Amino acid sequence: MNDFSHVTTPAFLVDRTIVEQNCARMRAKALASGVAFRPHVKTHKTIEIARMQHGGAIGPITVSTMAEAEFFAEGGFRDITYAVPVAPEKLPRAAALASRIERLNILIDSDAALRAVEEFHAANGVVFDVFLKVDCGYHRAGVDPNDPDSVRLAMAMSQSPAVHFQGLLTHAGHSYNASGVEEIRRIAAEEIESLSRFRALTGIDELTRSIGSTPTTAIADSFADTDEVRPGNYVFFDAFQSTLGTCTRDEVAVSVLATVIGSYPERNQAVIDAGGLALSKDVSPEHLDPNFGYGLVCDLDLRPLPARLIALSQEHGKLATDVPLSVGTRLRIIPNHSCLTAAMYERYHVIDGGEIVDEWRPVRGW
Amino acid sequence: MNDFSHVTTPAFLVDRTIVEQNCARMRAKALASGVAFRPHVKTHKTIEIARMQHGGAIGPITVSTMAEAEFFAEGGFRDITYAVPVAPEKLPRAAALASRIERLNILIDSDAALRAVEEFHAANGVVFDVFLKVDCGYHRAGVDPNDPDSVRLAMAMSQSPAVHFQGLLTHAGHSYNASGVEEIRRIAAEEIESLSRFRALTGIDELTRSIGSTPTTAIADSFADTDEVRPGNYVFFDAFQSTLGTCTRDEVAVSVLATVIGSYPERNQAVIDAGGLALSKDVSPEHLDPNFGYGLVCDLDLRPLPARLIALSQEHGKLATDVPLSVGTRLRIIPNHSCLTAAMYERYHVIDGGEIVDEWRPVRGW
Repeated sequence: MNDFSHVTTPAFLVDRTIVEQNCARMRAKALASGVAFRPHVKTHKTIEIARMQHGGAIGPITVSTMAEAEFFAEGGFRDITYAVPVAPEKLPRAAALASRIERLNILIDSDAALRAVEEFHAANGVVFDVFLKVDCGYHRAGVDPNDPDSVRLAMAMSQSPAVHFQGLLTHAGHSYNASGVEEIRRIAAEEIESLSRFRALTGIDELTRSIGSTPTTAIADSFADTDEVRPGNYVFFDAFQSTLGTCTRDEVAVSVLATVIGSYPERNQAVIDAGGLALSKDVSPEHLDPNFGYGLVCDLDLRPLPARLIALSQEHGKLATDVPLSVGTRLRIIPNHSCLTAAMYERYHVIDGGEIVDEWRPVRGW
Repeated sequence: MNDFSHVTTPAFLVDRTIVEQNCARMRAKALASGVAFRPHVKTHKTIEIARMQHGGAIGPITVSTMAEAEFFAEGGFRDITYAVPVAPEKLPRAAALASRIERLNILIDSDAALRAVEEFHAANGVVFDVFLKVDCGYHRAGVDPNDPDSVRLAMAMSQSPAVHFQGLLTHAGHSYNASGVEEIRRIAAEEIESLSRFRALTGIDELTRSIGSTPTTAIADSFADTDEVRPGNYVFFDAFQSTLGTCTRDEVAVSVLATVIGSYPERNQAVIDAGGLALSKDVSPEHLDPNFGYGLVCDLDLRPLPARLIALSQEHGKLATDVPLSVGTRLRIIPNHSCLTAAMYERYHVIDGGEIVDEWRPVRGW
């Protein structure tokens, strides 16, 4: 039985063996498929896991903030895609970083952003490596691949002296709203096809087609008709992914260690010392299980308990429980969304075989 | 017009003058009422604002984590209440801190916790200053003031050689679910009465009665029949409090500066570079305004815009907007819940008269 009694709670536990297995599986699939592998590091934000994603080596990565880009560059990573549409104000910082590493790809999805890049080029002479963000159905960011204006923007990028037009990038975030694996397969097919279709419309065959979401890449047997994959959450997975069916529960590598600080058997409730700051307030796939709660409540050996996390305040987590949970009892909560939960911690407790073996520190901020 | 063009986004802006006014108003009310003032510091987690809460001086404070307790002790604060039921595992750390400052009050609400304190006393000789947490209707933590077992626990605490029984503490967190100010007044009355009633049942007249939630203390004209008040959120307030009617919008001291990074007029949407990590995913009072969204969208001068934050992912905030918002436009988002949002930042940008005048760093972690 696992102990962890010397760890103060709340604490974020990362099972190193499971992370290594998750990393190896996705990397092997990408390599076997012959596509470039540029995993996202925003889920874990640590040098240690970024290296695991590349089998222990340095390799291309994807980031979600300039702070991550700078942190990983400092950690030796030389080929980075900053995969959020760039704000014009961040161009000076991006240019400074690009000059220090081999490649910093930035992302745009509008004429306005292209103009900002061109104005920066005119003033500073910098030529950015740029991807065009394409909307494959998530409708968050990206150009509509069926809109002639999108083709015109691609043509303008290909002709602009301010940019090296590297490729097309999409993210099927709507796979998180799918009802199950079959629907995810349809979304995965569209994620891939949308880029090939759009690239054909542009006629620029050398554009890299970059795809990636953990649901769509986790359920794929291999990758075809694409050039690069960028999953991120798969290193940890979480309760959301296991409910969605994109991983098994055994493949979830993280949990929040918590202590019962209040026991109220008269109302079948208990309170733990992990609240909104320790777990994040992200919800589970409510379309699949509206009563899931704010994480999966387990014992120290990760056996699920008949208890639900029904409310979170800043430092309190409120449980409805069918078993009495006495003050001092240790629990492990599998978080709904590992990316947001991990970001709440200044250090991860790395475990292996039920022992704490290391401590990793993620970058934070912007 | 405010500028902030040199600040990289997302950034957490704190208006110093408004914080000072919020601090002064609550403190004056407590002093005029003749009650002890022990404000909570968990909303801001900074030495600077804790001093403002006491008119520029050191004074008694309330904290929500041991990390806060240690940070503020290091910053000169000598009288601290750790107002979350203590986990038995945290007693050694609490004892170590208690020995370095004048007073560390801890909180319990069960026989089991009292036993843990007594066992620690038996092993180490430490006598803790202890408050008994009472449930005034929130039903998160605390003993039922109408249950004879609660009186028995109070009597056991008063007779235990392991504790200095200091008082009764309650928190009317259910005031956040109120439909308006009139209901908050009823909850505030019950918050106060529950402790007086319970104290009478124990017959221990010298117990301090400590109350505090921002809604119940903000709407009070003065404090009577209580000994100590502990509000916290009032230093910043937020969109939740202004929707609830416990502050005006002009009294909200904080906003998140963000930049539009995507503009999609064809679907009346835009994307900003502030997502779940920059805003937190806390919701507004959905019982009052189910369509409020993840924060109040304003221009640089804090004039509300006809736009709603309808979805947050890690680093993207998705807006439905009735006005076109072009790439590069700066916005200010008034967060729904300032406590959780502030905790996402390693530094606050302090503003005064539209200028950045300082930078404050909150403590984080546990």
